[in-house]
Amino acid sequence: MQFEEKTLKRQDIFEGKIFKVAVDQVALPNDKGTATRELIFHRGAVSILAVTPENKIIIVKQYRKAIEKVSYEIPAGKLEVGENGSEKEAALRELEEETGYTGDLELIHSFYTAIGFCNEKIQLYLAKDLQRVENPRPQDDDETLAVYEFSYEECQDLVASGQIEDAKTIIALQYYALHFGGEK
Amino acid sequence: MQFEEKTLKRQDIFEGKIFKVAVDQVALPNDKGTATRELIFHRGAVSILAVTPENKIIIVKQYRKAIEKVSYEIPAGKLEVGENGSEKEAALRELEEETGYTGDLELIHSFYTAIGFCNEKIQLYLAKDLQRVENPRPQDDDETLAVYEFSYEECQDLVASGQIEDAKTIIALQYYALHFGGEK
Repeated sequence: MQFEEKTLKRQDIFEGKIFKVAVDQVALPNDKGTATRELIFHRGAVSILAVTPENKIIIVKQYRKAIEKVSYEIPAGKLEVGENGSEKEAALRELEEETGYTGDLELIHSFYTAIGFCNEKIQLYLAKDLQRVENPRPQDDDETLAVYEFSYEECQDLVASGQIEDAKTIIALQYYALHFGGEK
Repeated sequence: MQFEEKTLKRQDIFEGKIFKVAVDQVALPNDKGTATRELIFHRGAVSILAVTPENKIIIVKQYRKAIEKVSYEIPAGKLEVGENGSEKEAALRELEEETGYTGDLELIHSFYTAIGFCNEKIQLYLAKDLQRVENPRPQDDDETLAVYEFSYEECQDLVASGQIEDAKTIIALQYYALHFGGEK
């Protein structure tokens, strides 16, 4: 059985600062004919499960326009142009900008967020041995963030109440529970 | 501190069968001026952590055009028009179409996949007491799937080798580890 879908034609729809949109006509494998694939191309992002010496998890509150709601999430940020291959530096930058902390980073998961139509890949780092940065880089101009340090139990309450509904944050919290104890 | 970003203007870019694209001009909170938000609107999807009586996890192999690679994932599917509010029925349909099984479904997580720019929300169900359907609904015409039953350890090997790189599948596997034993 063959799986690959060969591109017959690509129509470029939109080129933004955050993502590009294209529509492909593809040849289906195994002589099944053709199909249309709507696609989003994104440079990728980094996110950080930052655990303080007091065993608290750093959570950022911000407005998310796509869902028209405030959301609680682990710190994260998009890769910028030319940052491919230096995801760890990008994660350190986002951690400092969003929280004022720096730390030792270890890659714990790497995943496509919406694999059915989008190539955005997030690198998820664990940050340990957190230290406050004296004059941290400022937050991005267009971001309004509140930063919290929550226990794992407080994070679980935010999941239960629907205030944490973000895939990368759920992956990070499950990782915490599996590796630092917590939910059984 | 205010968080909400009010829409000043919306430009509709694309309306496809899978998603819509829009670009909003927004007023930033706290008199920070304006900004642009590139947005994807998606109807949402369902996915299923299906555990067999032998404690195997059902995994589907398929080609994903957005990443130009074959991917191993838990069964999943998009909500169709008018299926809002009947996500459990959609999950039963996808489980049957993709695997030939039916079962008892319990919602275990609900999450936005790419919250920074997209409103796609996935409902993740646990399917237990799996039973083979005698004449299951056929797979979608444009899908080519291979179906496997893997132990948790085999799934971990697929994560380690980069063949499982899908957020919803990682959430499902970590849930399995937390609730059915496995990794510590």
